[in-house]
Amino acid sequence: MVLEKINEPDDIKKLSEDELPLLARELRQFIVKNVSETGGHLASNLGDIELTIALHRVLSFPEDKLIWDVGHQSYAHKILTGRRAQFNTLRQKGGITGFSNPKESDCDAFISGHSSTSISTALGFAKARELTGDRENIVAVIGDGAMTGGLAYEALNNASTLRSNLTIILNDNQMSISPNVGGMSEHLAKLRTSEQYTGLKSDMEESLRRVPGGENVIHFLRHAKNGIKQLLVPGMIFENLGVMYLGPVDGHDIEAMTRIIGRALKYRGPVLIHVITKKGKGYRPAEKNPSLFHGVGPFDIKTGRQKNLNEYPTYTEVFSKALVRNAEQNDRVVAVTAAMALGCGLKEFKKLFPDRFFDVGIAEAHAVTFSSALAEGGMVPVFSVYSSFLQRGFDELIHDVAIEGSHVVFAVDRAGIVGRDGITHQGIFDISYLSMIPGMTVMAPKDAQELSDMLDFAIEKMTSPVAIRYPRGEAYFCEPERRTPIEYGKCEALSEPKDAKVMLFALGSMVGCAIDAAVILKRTEVSASVVNARFASPIDKDFLTNAAEKYDLIVSLEENVRSGGFGEHVLSILSDAGYKGKFINISIPDEFVPQGSVEELCCDVGIDADSVASRIEEALGVKEDTDEKKA
Amino acid sequence: MVLEKINEPDDIKKLSEDELPLLARELRQFIVKNVSETGGHLASNLGDIELTIALHRVLSFPEDKLIWDVGHQSYAHKILTGRRAQFNTLRQKGGITGFSNPKESDCDAFISGHSSTSISTALGFAKARELTGDRENIVAVIGDGAMTGGLAYEALNNASTLRSNLTIILNDNQMSISPNVGGMSEHLAKLRTSEQYTGLKSDMEESLRRVPGGENVIHFLRHAKNGIKQLLVPGMIFENLGVMYLGPVDGHDIEAMTRIIGRALKYRGPVLIHVITKKGKGYRPAEKNPSLFHGVGPFDIKTGRQKNLNEYPTYTEVFSKALVRNAEQNDRVVAVTAAMALGCGLKEFKKLFPDRFFDVGIAEAHAVTFSSALAEGGMVPVFSVYSSFLQRGFDELIHDVAIEGSHVVFAVDRAGIVGRDGITHQGIFDISYLSMIPGMTVMAPKDAQELSDMLDFAIEKMTSPVAIRYPRGEAYFCEPERRTPIEYGKCEALSEPKDAKVMLFALGSMVGCAIDAAVILKRTEVSASVVNARFASPIDKDFLTNAAEKYDLIVSLEENVRSGGFGEHVLSILSDAGYKGKFINISIPDEFVPQGSVEELCCDVGIDADSVASRIEEALGVKEDTDEKKA
Repeated sequence: MVLEKINEPDDIKKLSEDELPLLARELRQFIVKNVSETGGHLASNLGDIELTIALHRVLSFPEDKLIWDVGHQSYAHKILTGRRAQFNTLRQKGGITGFSNPKESDCDAFISGHSSTSISTALGFAKARELTGDRENIVAVIGDGAMTGGLAYEALNNASTLRSNLTIILNDNQMSISPNVGGMSEHLAKLRTSEQYTGLKSDMEESLRRVPGGENVIHFLRHAKNGIKQLLVPGMIFENLGVMYLGPVDGHDIEAMTRIIGRALKYRGPVLIHVITKKGKGYRPAEKNPSLFHGVGPFDIKTGRQKNLNEYPTYTEVFSKALVRNAEQNDRVVAVTAAMALGCGLKEFKKLFPDRFFDVGIAEAHAVTFSSALAEGGMVPVFSVYSSFLQRGFDELIHDVAIEGSHVVFAVDRAGIVGRDGITHQGIFDISYLSMIPGMTVMAPKDAQELSDMLDFAIEKMTSPVAIRYPRGEAYFCEPERRTPIEYGKCEALSEPKDAKVMLFALGSMVGCAIDAAVILKRTEVSASVVNARFASPIDKDFLTNAAEKYDLIVSLEENVRSGGFGEHVLSILSDAGYKGKFINISIPDEFVPQGSVEELCCDVGIDADSVASRIEEALGVKEDTDEKKA
Repeated sequence: MVLEKINEPDDIKKLSEDELPLLARELRQFIVKNVSETGGHLASNLGDIELTIALHRVLSFPEDKLIWDVGHQSYAHKILTGRRAQFNTLRQKGGITGFSNPKESDCDAFISGHSSTSISTALGFAKARELTGDRENIVAVIGDGAMTGGLAYEALNNASTLRSNLTIILNDNQMSISPNVGGMSEHLAKLRTSEQYTGLKSDMEESLRRVPGGENVIHFLRHAKNGIKQLLVPGMIFENLGVMYLGPVDGHDIEAMTRIIGRALKYRGPVLIHVITKKGKGYRPAEKNPSLFHGVGPFDIKTGRQKNLNEYPTYTEVFSKALVRNAEQNDRVVAVTAAMALGCGLKEFKKLFPDRFFDVGIAEAHAVTFSSALAEGGMVPVFSVYSSFLQRGFDELIHDVAIEGSHVVFAVDRAGIVGRDGITHQGIFDISYLSMIPGMTVMAPKDAQELSDMLDFAIEKMTSPVAIRYPRGEAYFCEPERRTPIEYGKCEALSEPKDAKVMLFALGSMVGCAIDAAVILKRTEVSASVVNARFASPIDKDFLTNAAEKYDLIVSLEENVRSGGFGEHVLSILSDAGYKGKFINISIPDEFVPQGSVEELCCDVGIDADSVASRIEEALGVKEDTDEKKA
């Protein structure tokens, strides 16, 4: 095995050129085998193996800085930089992370989990290098999907001021998570189809030669001033922004890429190499369905069939059905996604209502403002988005939605602990950043049925901005099934034993936990009411004001950080109401949460039913002598 | 006066063409006169008068939707749409707002105070129109400065999917607030210099005709497939993104613009008209110094000299000096701005340390990520930015700074009530959105001296992300001047009378208010301690835990919304400490705050010393029979 010879970053340079295709094949097999067991991002990592090899032949680690945009495409890089032996711990608690992380290896230059950050990062490093006088190479690898993000453009626009080298590899696989959309994507497609893979030479010049007089014109253009000369060069969108364009080049031709990267690194200033790769390359199921194999759970290598599929519908699926039902009844309902139609449950909507479906690219900020104008233009837009990605549209939520007061529905998926994607993807801030926005209604369903009811309520009954946040994974079904109508700003009391001196006031996903905790508490004969808060903003003040008189201990429960979260607001209301009893805030401590299974992580941060029950018993001084307490 | 004939939006269409230049002149005089009295944005509004007239000759209001990017350039539009008589109330409490606002007039299509939103908004309206079958015109006017914002690019990229008309006017005055920077700006400069103002015709075609064989080539290019044809058209950056480019056109030639706008509106799809205007046009002091006259207070028309200049240094000036001092002592200190060098106090730094100064354009998100990489590359970056604009970098603060853990210093200016810029510019959310981020230290100085000390502390003593927030306007000087060293996470007790049963725990700008309130409270013989919190995150837990035992009433004071703010965190700590006394949260109610003077608004929201004293007296039941209580 060639792969086994590579234990240190420099080992790859000892290989002969003949061994490199073999290395690529072995890396592919190694990644497919590992990801089939651990789950992870597959298609993109199969697509950039030759590119990674070419980069590693030219660059030196950890001296040089290689910045992977959305680090989930850096598996080969991880394996080649001393992490092969641990690679079977990918995305497991305590194991190798699914993204780039400098805390994991000094060969990872920067944190990278969200899209479109790499050029900004590389530019910052390059400007620092100009000041320190260091001489390391700095290379950013960015996908064509990430190029639709405004952050990438802001950085590209700023890059023209650079006097030293910055090499940007545009890893163009003609899609991000979903097939790519928009003007930039079409521009890249034109470059791909109109040019040969000749590295630098445009076919325009060739064409001109065949026209009578063309030679004269070529001479004229070559010597023309005021920028006409660059018309001979493809990639004008980049050239016009002051970034030299090289390519396109075949992203599976190691030799060609090694050559062009070496050349690019010598250029003084920003240069972009357009590399064409195939997502899922070399593993047929992933080549055939790159969206499905973008991120996968464990699967059978032979068939590509996923294992451990959900038994019950996920919240995403519940949302998907409820949205379609609403759209059938109301033709003003439109759906917006930032390149996540599949993950956000909009595939069915897109099929049924293609004219009312808008994929805006990886552009959450634009999606928010765009949705607000759709609303003011008479539609009822539902922007379905992951909690951690909606952070990108925070100012637009305030400025373009809340101040405008438009009726946009935010379906905030992956809210709370997301598990294996880890630190950059945890949806643990949205209650704080949404409920602080004046006029923004924030709801969270206790179970599948309530998500459906809340979506109906948000679409039919609301006329102002409203967010519904729900977690990743299988939906909870509350037993016995209850279904009381949603009322604005009102909570739902699920059980109120007469003798209860404790109230569990739980939000969304934590209602199930509160129900379980109440059962556990019976072991110490603690009787607790369980209330489904439903609204994180506005919180049911009347209910809490009454509760302030009835209970000795009130517990808030949420799957969000403590700072600015639901619990702090509840306490604030209780304080105003003159509450003198005890208060426990069950929430995620104000720290970032790493990767692991959702269950593991919930226990670690103390938001599981056992931890909750123990904390209550402790506060009441009725703690049983058990070892169940979690840190 | 021609201007006096215009009372309704349609009145301008009754004017003869000959009257239009006269109208432009009168509008100019009217705006200069009014702004010299009220203060406001001047230079940009003088620059787009002819453009506004041309738009109003073609469009109909309120049917058509005209979206001004950063609505501060819409004064002429306001005057022409029935707001002439009230225009002398500009930026005054209850008066005409300085930006676009649909709540002020149905001729303002959308809220607009932050940059780069107009294309997203226009696109949302256009997609809604495609679904409703309405037929109104939709026009966005965006400055070249706003074009550096990623949001504008995300929207442009998305616009290519549009099948109906969307007209984008690029109002190019070669600068935003500061002279413009970056690749896009250079591209626009090339368009300006290489092309004649001929509307549609490129001079490249003319040049080709003069070359032997050129005619054949033109024929070839005109009929070539795969995108070569567009090489004949300037503005390729836009054409490449799928947006038709028209121009450049002289932005002070009403007739030419009327013609080209009329043509553009007939095109099926997105079209961009490149209009060249002169900022400050027609008023010499503003033409000479457009940055100074971007936003001004009242001034003398003859000399252009500003009235009511500050007597004492502003916080911005204090910051500016302290930063320069730090930069002199430490050559790793670098400064970053998002096109606001003047407003953010970086002019002197730029002059002294041009190599260490980075203006990245109106690109706050990029500025945050870029700064983080500068830090990881060995620098100590200080990103100076307005509170309400830093909202644009919220995800980057979490993802690229806090998770990475990099030592970036955020100098958060205009934090709290900003006054006349009104609803879109109030810096009333930063305590909430910054202190919820794990690992982010948040400080606020009580006065000028402490801002300087905190900056030293942030640069010298910290190694992780840190923000210092301070308000607009003249700096407070605490009397008697105290200067105890900053200690991480520690507050500063300013006065602790032995008999005090009340503690005022105040953050930043509210320390002065607390001192005043304590004096007022003596009227009812209430003795109150005053404590300068210094840190909004982490809050001094030990001090509060002790205080919980000593006081009967604890009051938190902050210039930030209540939700997620300082007060809720203080209460949360007190609750954990078993505090059983009363608690008052002095903060801005969870509502947007309109325009007015800072003093007026502070009284309105109840964060002035009188209001604070009254609320405390009320809580203690010692309220004097006065009318001083504010709602």
